[in-house]
Formats: sequence, C-alpha cells, structure tokens
Amino acid sequence: MSVQELVGYDKAAVRSILDAVRAEGRDSLTAPEGRAVVEAYGISTPGEGLAANPEDAVVLATRMGFPVVLKIVSPDILHKTEAGGVIVGVTDAAAAADAYRTIVRNAREYDPDARIAGVQVQQMLTAGHEVIIGAVSDPTFGKIVAFGLGGVLVEVLKDVTFRLAPTSPETARSMVEGIKAAEILRGVRGAEPADAEALAQLISRVSDLVTDFPEISEVDLNPVLATATSATAVDVRILVGAAAEPPARFTREEILASMNRIMRPASVAVIGASAEDGKIGNSVMKNLVNGGFAGKIHPVNPKASDILGLPAVAGINDIEGDVDVAIFAIPAKFVPAALEEAGAKGVAGAILIPSGFGETGNQELQDEVVAIARKHGVRILGPNIYGYYYTPQHLSATFCTPYDVPGGVALSSQSGGIGMAILGFSRSARMGVSAIVGVGNKADLDEDDLLTFFEDDEHTQLIAMHLEDLKDGRAFAETAQRVSKHKPVIVLKAGRTAEGARAAGSHTGALAGDDVVYDDILRESGVIRAPGLNDLLEYARGLPQLPTPKGENVVIITGAGGSGVLLSDACVDNGLSLMRIPEDLDQAFRAFIPPFGAAGNPVDITGGEPPSTYRNTIALGLEDPRIHALILGYWHTIVTPPMTFAELVVDVVDEFRARGIHKPIVASLSGDVEVEEAAEFLYRHGVVAYPYTTEKPVAVLGAKYRWARAAGLL
Amino acid sequence: MSVQELVGYDKAAVRSILDAVRAEGRDSLTAPEGRAVVEAYGISTPGEGLAANPEDAVVLATRMGFPVVLKIVSPDILHKTEAGGVIVGVTDAAAAADAYRTIVRNAREYDPDARIAGVQVQQMLTAGHEVIIGAVSDPTFGKIVAFGLGGVLVEVLKDVTFRLAPTSPETARSMVEGIKAAEILRGVRGAEPADAEALAQLISRVSDLVTDFPEISEVDLNPVLATATSATAVDVRILVGAAAEPPARFTREEILASMNRIMRPASVAVIGASAEDGKIGNSVMKNLVNGGFAGKIHPVNPKASDILGLPAVAGINDIEGDVDVAIFAIPAKFVPAALEEAGAKGVAGAILIPSGFGETGNQELQDEVVAIARKHGVRILGPNIYGYYYTPQHLSATFCTPYDVPGGVALSSQSGGIGMAILGFSRSARMGVSAIVGVGNKADLDEDDLLTFFEDDEHTQLIAMHLEDLKDGRAFAETAQRVSKHKPVIVLKAGRTAEGARAAGSHTGALAGDDVVYDDILRESGVIRAPGLNDLLEYARGLPQLPTPKGENVVIITGAGGSGVLLSDACVDNGLSLMRIPEDLDQAFRAFIPPFGAAGNPVDITGGEPPSTYRNTIALGLEDPRIHALILGYWHTIVTPPMTFAELVVDVVDEFRARGIHKPIVASLSGDVEVEEAAEFLYRHGVVAYPYTTEKPVAVLGAKYRWARAAGLL
Repeated sequence: MSVQELVGYDKAAVRSILDAVRAEGRDSLTAPEGRAVVEAYGISTPGEGLAANPEDAVVLATRMGFPVVLKIVSPDILHKTEAGGVIVGVTDAAAAADAYRTIVRNAREYDPDARIAGVQVQQMLTAGHEVIIGAVSDPTFGKIVAFGLGGVLVEVLKDVTFRLAPTSPETARSMVEGIKAAEILRGVRGAEPADAEALAQLISRVSDLVTDFPEISEVDLNPVLATATSATAVDVRILVGAAAEPPARFTREEILASMNRIMRPASVAVIGASAEDGKIGNSVMKNLVNGGFAGKIHPVNPKASDILGLPAVAGINDIEGDVDVAIFAIPAKFVPAALEEAGAKGVAGAILIPSGFGETGNQELQDEVVAIARKHGVRILGPNIYGYYYTPQHLSATFCTPYDVPGGVALSSQSGGIGMAILGFSRSARMGVSAIVGVGNKADLDEDDLLTFFEDDEHTQLIAMHLEDLKDGRAFAETAQRVSKHKPVIVLKAGRTAEGARAAGSHTGALAGDDVVYDDILRESGVIRAPGLNDLLEYARGLPQLPTPKGENVVIITGAGGSGVLLSDACVDNGLSLMRIPEDLDQAFRAFIPPFGAAGNPVDITGGEPPSTYRNTIALGLEDPRIHALILGYWHTIVTPPMTFAELVVDVVDEFRARGIHKPIVASLSGDVEVEEAAEFLYRHGVVAYPYTTEKPVAVLGAKYRWARAAGLL
Repeated sequence: MSVQELVGYDKAAVRSILDAVRAEGRDSLTAPEGRAVVEAYGISTPGEGLAANPEDAVVLATRMGFPVVLKIVSPDILHKTEAGGVIVGVTDAAAAADAYRTIVRNAREYDPDARIAGVQVQQMLTAGHEVIIGAVSDPTFGKIVAFGLGGVLVEVLKDVTFRLAPTSPETARSMVEGIKAAEILRGVRGAEPADAEALAQLISRVSDLVTDFPEISEVDLNPVLATATSATAVDVRILVGAAAEPPARFTREEILASMNRIMRPASVAVIGASAEDGKIGNSVMKNLVNGGFAGKIHPVNPKASDILGLPAVAGINDIEGDVDVAIFAIPAKFVPAALEEAGAKGVAGAILIPSGFGETGNQELQDEVVAIARKHGVRILGPNIYGYYYTPQHLSATFCTPYDVPGGVALSSQSGGIGMAILGFSRSARMGVSAIVGVGNKADLDEDDLLTFFEDDEHTQLIAMHLEDLKDGRAFAETAQRVSKHKPVIVLKAGRTAEGARAAGSHTGALAGDDVVYDDILRESGVIRAPGLNDLLEYARGLPQLPTPKGENVVIITGAGGSGVLLSDACVDNGLSLMRIPEDLDQAFRAFIPPFGAAGNPVDITGGEPPSTYRNTIALGLEDPRIHALILGYWHTIVTPPMTFAELVVDVVDEFRARGIHKPIVASLSGDVEVEEAAEFLYRHGVVAYPYTTEKPVAVLGAKYRWARAAGLL
C-alpha cells in the first residue's frame, strides 16, 4: 500500500493554499502556509494550539504529545517569563491543566488589567537527529527529492543524496541508508537511533507532494528532527514557480520503428555525395562502399552523373523506390531545403553531419530543421556529428574510416573528438563493436532513443555512452533502468566537476549540484558510471568478455606475493569481496602449492612454480562451486614463461567451459615485454588480462559486479 | 621560540607520576594522574578545587575563570541538589562568595549533623568545538600525534590526521587545517570559530610530552573543547608501556661509503657462478657480461675453471685484488659460510638473490646472515631478490634480462613480481632508467639507504619505489623529506586497504590504521603517493620529461570540445588550477581561432582547423609568461593528421626551448590508431602524450605539480 493510501492526502487544502499564493503573485509560501501544505500530506510539524481553558490545554497537549510548553498569550504582557507566563517541560495531562491555571493566575497577579487571549500550547521536541529533506525541480531530471544529515555535516561535507520523484518506499529507504554518515542515524556511541521508516515515509510524502503539484519548485524541510519513533519537520520552506513543460516524447514503438529503419536501412542517400578526394561527401561514399554495405547507396549531387561507380541523382526525389536514410554532407545553410525533399521522400532518418547549428550559436537554424523533420515524421541524428556505424549491416555512414570488427559493444558519443578516440581504441584493441553513433547536438535523437534500439538489438550486449548532458534525463533514467536489467549500460558523464553555482532559493536547491544529482540518479537507474574515458573504453571492451558471476566470492591466485597485495587493494577499491576460504578448500589449495606458499586469499603459489601449479590451482578455483570469480596474478619466470601461462589458462578455462562452468576470470601479468603478447592472447580467449597493472583487470571485474548487482543478478 | 621555551614544562612532575605508576606495575594512569601530567605540559583542563571558606572560593573561581559551579563536599550529604548544595552558573567573585555561604547554610539546614569538608569549585565549560588530540607509538613511525574532530565525525567519518612527533608549530597548524571538516572549526552558519593557534599549541605540547617520555605509549585528550579563545582537555587518558628500542641506524656517510661501492663496483664476484643454462648463477654471469659491465667479473665456483670465458676461482679468497660486491647465487643454507668468506675479503655489499629466509619462515637463518654481515661491515641487499641494475655502469647484477636504456629514473621494489613489471614496462616504454633495485626481505639495506644514494647520484632525477612496509619509517620519512626537495620521490605503498584492527587501548590508537598514518606521513615527507602500479610507472616515466612549472596557471588548448570538458574534469581531479584567462590574453587567443570557437579556458580551437591554428595557439601559450603549463587536446582530422600535429608541437616546443622557455606540456590524442605513433613521437620529445585517454596526461602533470608544491618550488 502506498503512503498516500495509508494516510490520505488532503489535496484540496494544498490546492487552495497554492491558488491563494498564486492569486497574490507570490513565489514563496509563508511559514504557516508551508506548514499547512506539508501537514495536508501527513507530515508532522511541531504541534501548537491556543487553549481557552485548562481542558483545552489538556486536549491539545495530549493530541500533540508530551512534553509541551505553555505560554501566556496577551497583547499586554511583553515579558512573559517575568510575568510567570511560561512553563516548560509539562509531561502529563494533570500538569497541563495545572500549568494553565498557574499561568493565568500569575498573569493576573502581574497585571490585573491585562487582556488574556488564552494560553498557547506548543510541542517540545526532545533532542533528535537533525536531517534535511527536500525537493527541487531539476532542469535535467524534473522533480527530485533530497535527503541528508542536517547541520554542519550537510553544510561542510555535502553529505546528501538525490532520487527521482516520485520515489518508491524502497527507494526512499535507500536514501536514508545511502548517505555517507548513515551510521550516525543508526545510533553511535549509545545515541538513540533515528526512525528510518518514519524518515523514508516523510521522503515519500514530500516526493508525492511535488509530483502532485508540479508548480511547487522547491521544498525544504530543514531541519527535520528524527527520534527513535518519529520524524518532525521543524522548519518548512516552499517555493512555487511555473510548472515545467514535460518534454515531448515518442513511444517505444515509434522509436523502434524509426530506429530500425535508420540502423538497418535497405537504402541510403548521400546528399552532397562527391567524387572529389578530401570532401566529406566523398569520404562518406567511400566508407559506405568500401565498408561493404549491402543495401542500396544513392549519391545525390546535381553536378555529377556517377560517383564511385554509382549513378548519381540530382535530387533525392529522383531516386526510384524508398529511401530509409539520408546522410547530409552539405553545408548547414542548405540543409532545410534538402531536408524538406528528404521528408517528402519519406526517409526515416536524416543524418546531419554538418556543423554550423546550435553549437556555433545558430540555434534558429537548428530549430527550423527540427520543425521540418517533425512535419515529415523524420528523426534527426545530429547535427554536428561524424555519422554512425552499424557493423551487422557493414554500415559505415561516416566521414571517418570504416570499422569492421563486429561484436557486442554499442558506443555513442556526444563529441566528435571522443568518437574518434572510441574508433581508434576499438581498432587498436580489436574490440568487437555493433555500433558507434555520434549524437552531436542531439537536436532530436538522443541517448534514450539509442538505448531503446540497442535493448532489442540482438547484436548488442553492452551499451557505452559518452555524454555531457541529457536532453530529457527522466526519459533516459527510465529507459536505462529497464535496459540495464538485461544489458550493461556504461556512461562517461563529462563535465562532472563543473558543478557550478545554481541560483537556488532553498538549501536543497543549493546542494543539488549537477554532478551529484547525475551520480545518484544514474546509479539509481542501474547505470555503471565510468570515471574516465579510458575506463569507459576498457569496461566496454572487457565486460562482454566476462560471464556474469553467480556470487560475491572472489579468489586471487598469484605467483607473486607482491601482486597479491596490490590485487587485494584493488579488490577493496572496486567493492569486491575476497572470499574467506573455508578450511577444506584451504587444504585443497595447499596440496598444490609449496609448503612456504600461502593459502588463504590471495592464494600465493610462489614465484618459481611450474605450469602445473598454476593449472591445478586455477582448475580448483573453477571447480569449487563456492568460488564465483578468479583474479590471476602472473609472475614471469623461466619455469613458466608468459605464453606458457597464457596457453595453460586458456586450456583449463576451455575445459571447464566445455563442462558448462563459466566464471569471470581476469589477470594481471608482471614480467618482461613478452607478457604483452600473453595478455592479448588471454583477452582474445575471454580472460580479461593486462600487463604492468594490477588495477585495470580488477576495475573491469568490479564494473561487471556493479552491473550484476544493479541488475539484480546477484 | 618553541612551545616548551614559552611555557616551561614541568618534566620532574611527570617523571615522578610515571615512576609511581611503574612502581605499582600499572599500564594506565588514573584520571587525576593523567590530568596532572598534561597540566605539567601546559595543557589546560577544566579547573577545579576545594574551597574551605568564601575567600577560597573566590580565589579558585577567579584563577580558573568564570562561570563556575559550586558543590557541597560532605560524606553525609548524598543528594546534593536536594540539600540545596549545588549552585551553577556563578559568574563573578561576589556571587562566588555568596554561593559558598548559601551552600553551607543550606547544607546545615538540611542536616545539622553533616560533616562539611568544604565546597568544590569547578570550571563550567561553555559550549565549544569538540576535537580529539592524541598520540600513539606507531610500530613503523614511532611517536605520532593525531588530530580530528570529536564526536560522531571522527567516530563515523574517521576524519583524523597524523604527523610524526615532535611536530613543528607549522606542522601542528597544518593538522588543524588538514582535516576534511576543517571548515567547521573556522565557524560555519554563524558558529564561533575554534582557536586554531591554541589547538596547534596543544598538539605541540602532546607531541613534546610523548617525545620527552618515550614510555608513554598512548595519549587521548578526548574531547578537547575549543572556543574562540581557548582549548581545554576535558578528558585525559594516558597509557604507558616499554619504550620501543630505536632501530639501529647508519650515518649518511656510512651509507654512502657502502652504497657507492655497491652501485659503482670496480669488481664483482658471483658466488655460485655457473656455466649451465637455466641456472641462476649462469643468468647472472650472462647479464653481467652481455650487459656490458666494464669492471672485473669473478665467477666463483669450486667445480669450474672457466665460465663464459672468464677464469673461475674456487673461493672468493682466491681472487686477487679487492672485490666490492659479492652476488650470491647459491642456496640459502650455503650463504652463511660464503658470507663469512666474502666479509673476510672485504666486500662492501652482499647481494643475496636466494630465497628461503624470513619469507619462508626461516628468520633464524636471516638473523644469522645479518649478524655475519654486521661483523664484517658488509651491507646486505635482499635476501629473496632478483638483484639490481645500475645503467651508468652497465651493471645488470640480476638473473632477469639486462636493461640498457640509461636515463634518470631509479626504481626499487620489495617484490620480485613487481620488479619484473617495472622491467617490462620500462623496456616497452623505453623508459630511461638509472637503476632498478630489488630489496626483497630488507634484512639490511632498505629504501632510506637507496634514497641516500640516489640523492647524490648525478644520474638519477627521480626515485620511484614500490613498498609494502618500512623497517624504519621515521628514517625513511626524514630522508625522503630531504631528498624530495631536489628529486621527486614516488611511492606505491601496497597493502593500503588491509588496515586491520590494531589492538589499542585508546581512541587515537584505534583510529591510527596503518594506511591513514602512512598516507599522512608520506605526504608530510614530500613523497608523491601513486594510487596504483601503473600510476607509479607512468609518473616515473613522465615526471622527468616535464620541466618544473613556475606557477599554477594551467591552460587547456583543444581541437575537440568534448576532450576539453574531460580534460577540465581531470584538472579538478588532480588539483590543477585552470587559469582564468585575462581579457587581453583571451583576445590574443581569439585572433587565431574561428569565431564560433571558444576562448576562455579550455581554449577550443574547434575540430576542422589546420596545423597553423594549433601552432599559433600553442606558441601563444608558451610565449605568455602568465601561463605556466599547457594541456593539449588533439582531435584527429584530415586537415591536421596525427603526425602533422605531433611534429608541429615538437617544432614549436623546440623553438621556445632554444629561447630558454621551458614549460610542462602534456597531450591527450583522440583519433584513429595513427595517434599511437604520434603520442610516442611526442613523448620521445618531452611532451607527455597518450592516446585514448584524457586522464593519464593530466594525472602525470598533476603529480609533477604535487611534487613541485611539496618541494617548495611553487
């Protein structure tokens, strides 16, 4: 049952307050208005009320809960304490009635003429954990909620976490557990713990509130005081603004209909095809032809009759039959007219290679082009891109060089430079690729369209994306959450350190720096975030090589004790769990290693061992079902040279694969330059191996584990 | 003037308390003893005293400072408050005298027969910042002091920092400023700041105390309350134990005398030299001969007359003339007898390649060997090592393969496996190396001996060390502090995540995990810590290539906007400052780039530019004295292919070098595989360049900056 069903929100009360605020042209609510709004959503605030007699005081105090404080309310008594008009720490009904009488008597004695309006009863909040709960309208993700520890912790250490609103109860709980100092809320040094469930409910209520009333732009409950049994919003601040227009979206079916024609076209036209070397329209033609694209290729150029042996047409209309994709290799200013023609021809996708649009300040031209595309139902890729590759179709629709190593990795980049790095790395590492897509200005097609296509694409096993921003972060998050259940989604989010100051009217708003919000929401969506470009590329290359682990037990087998220590460090850095080796398994390992070797984990077989020792211990690691992943540390010796090691590993791994036993294995190779060849051989055979580094193989395994956990496979 | 000179420590008082504690066989001080000890070192504790009359009360209260609290002291009055025997918040002398009288009167009324011992006067500490200050005896570094924020911050977030005791005043201040939450002490949200100077003095006093009295094993001042004007130790806990024996040390002159003979021997003997392929004694001989060592090489083998064409002798005594180094390639059990002979022959160094000593549990044999070495004044390298290389002498005293690319990098490793990774990486990257040294078990020679030699070695510009522990951390720290002023010292400290639980009797002891102590003290010593093996190697390779920057202004010049964003991220990650480009410089850059390019920083020259644009902007970056370092982001295009870019960069850099202008330049190359060759070309010409990564070049520049700052060069 949702929080709303449990408590029943008084939406009408909120509506009327917000309408009144809007009617007065204000953009912030007064404290009592804010209080009334959150109370309408079942959020406790410190109780208070005016008692006209002792019985009133008892009723009020009992309702809000003891202890309470009572204070005289009189326009004629300024110094309440001096007048004996304040009694704190009232702990039961009888005392409340007494306190009422005492206060009124004291007031009458102090000033017999004073007009007495009654006695205010206020809840006294006993000490609790100070936390902040809030919500803002994020320009990328829409409504998001925030949770953090209050006071100096959030102020100085920025220990705060964000999620998309509305949150599920599980998500709200994950926020309470997800801050760095969460342990404080569980009660340390004998302190009372905070009521995590009450905090999670409060988060859910705030999240429901901003979802139900989109014009609420910021909410700050700061502080919220959390005791072992309650959570109360002491101060409430609410700002309102124009509700953001939700971005236009296509349905999954619409996206797939377009994307399938774009990625697997039967026929492409090259607008601006050229026979002249060095021209973009020439490079695109060469890559289509030389790349081996099997569909129809139509050069469009009014001044040519033949390009690369293919008959050229003057305009796209002159092409007989359907055209799925039009690739534009003409200057920006000629795009609108050509796009009108392509739209009329019924293309599914317009690949806008030219620059000179939004990125150079010419947003108007970009908007014009999008409007034309919308009119014709054409989807635009770009503008300002290198094009795209889709290897299952041998399609290299780009002015760069063709790529022809098919495989399971789909990559995209927002920047052409990064696209070239992807291409170069892929070629150098012979990474199997299904697609490389430039998204450039993302005037139309963006990452969630690509995700939607790659989700269903049988050739794609993993999606790796470089991005600087998201046009519609919520659509991306929702799509990624679905896709990442089946296929790893790796994201390099650039610009992460340019958090910048956001103009914000609330504390929550000030804390919601771009990067911290991206980080939390990408993680919530099951996305594996790569810390840098090289990590993006190495994760993309490595993850498809590794079978999904079936459990958390990682074992290191190493010939070099020194590597074992560094590999252990890397395990901790990457959130991997070194298995505690049970006694019987320890004995089993010991049977294979010299007496001065160390079993335990790492299993240190020592340096001078023959191939059989590596073989036996690795086989044991694969055989024992309690072990879920292996990290190998190889030490180059004369007794077991690099290629001998590599071949024996592949041999034993193949043997177990044949028996249906698949476990992720990574390796770090320490040795002279021959280890480079050995590492390549291992990699080609599904063992993610690197020379001269203990960090990289473990980082790739760690990324595989992060994905498997997020996808719920562990 | 030191703290001690300012305040005068009462060492006699401390001595007598510690003697009394020892006499009673205790290992911890009582609270009053602890208080007395720290007060003897000028550390304030909350004042308290017993007044026998109103005048006493006034004197006591005035001395300790107001406000105070007065309490009846009577064996017959258990419920002091009920008896009217407690008055809090006494703020001046008159009130103190009154309070004394009132309390005694109340007590007499309450119980006329009560025996009244007097009235206790206690200082009332007004709210302040809670911090922890402590000291422990660290097994590696000896006496160290700790500083952290108190309460849950240190408890949960472990926000604590350590330094060697004794500390200088500057070091003590750096601790107060060095914790993550230091901002809290400066006063946030209108809070009162803490008196940083008083805290620093308190740290110095604790540090002096444990230095003066080595038997004090742990000190906890927890909490210390710091106001804007004071710092008071509220609770004091002191533990004592046996004072640790300071490790034996050699003088700098002694170390250099031995190391110079070991690293630059005129004559070496190979004990266990062999003519048989595959034997370690054969590999060592081959490497010495084939490596081109120009000194005398004496194979020692009673069963051979000639090895690799060199006359063999039966024993080292049979060699005519002096022998500087004896390389042992015989089983462990034969080492003692052979070492006796070598010692008698007067060798300076015994290179113990064999394993089978401490690392396999045979500590006794290792101790025996060290004792023999000490007797003869021989220094031992190892045991359990691959040997060592010193390229200026063409000396490859190792069973691995020779290395012959001379250069300025000296490397050492504690593990043979890591040594092999060093060798392989060096060869693969053609890294110029002065020495590679295996230290293995470090039975004798260790990192501070190596540092001492490399400090003076004209062939060495940078020292890079892999280590798992330090035998004498204090000697290392002191040596590194001196050496790192002239030459970068890079350390990969392995085992950093195995912090483990240390049995500790104090809070400070429990916080002093191995790694956090290493981290703080290595930093204090000017050491650049490498996060991983590959970083160690890349820093070692890259730093000598880069001239030392003359200031903090870093400028990014990029052809790819996307790389610019990632390079900016990397700058923040690596503590680099992106220069704010002044208006005139911005205009100067704009003159060279297209109108839609972006000046500012990164300077985005845009992707399609010819070589001249790269050339002009880079030249401007080198010319303008306000710019101190350049980061280049190259984007592979047809207009400026990779090698064209690389050559123009080297050209313009050479031009400025010829004019005496040297600035560090690093480059990230995005493109197809040709960028690999271009990056290598750039690297060979002193521009630290990498393909497919924006992180690595910036990390190397960041390491150079960290060193330059620590060495006081910026």
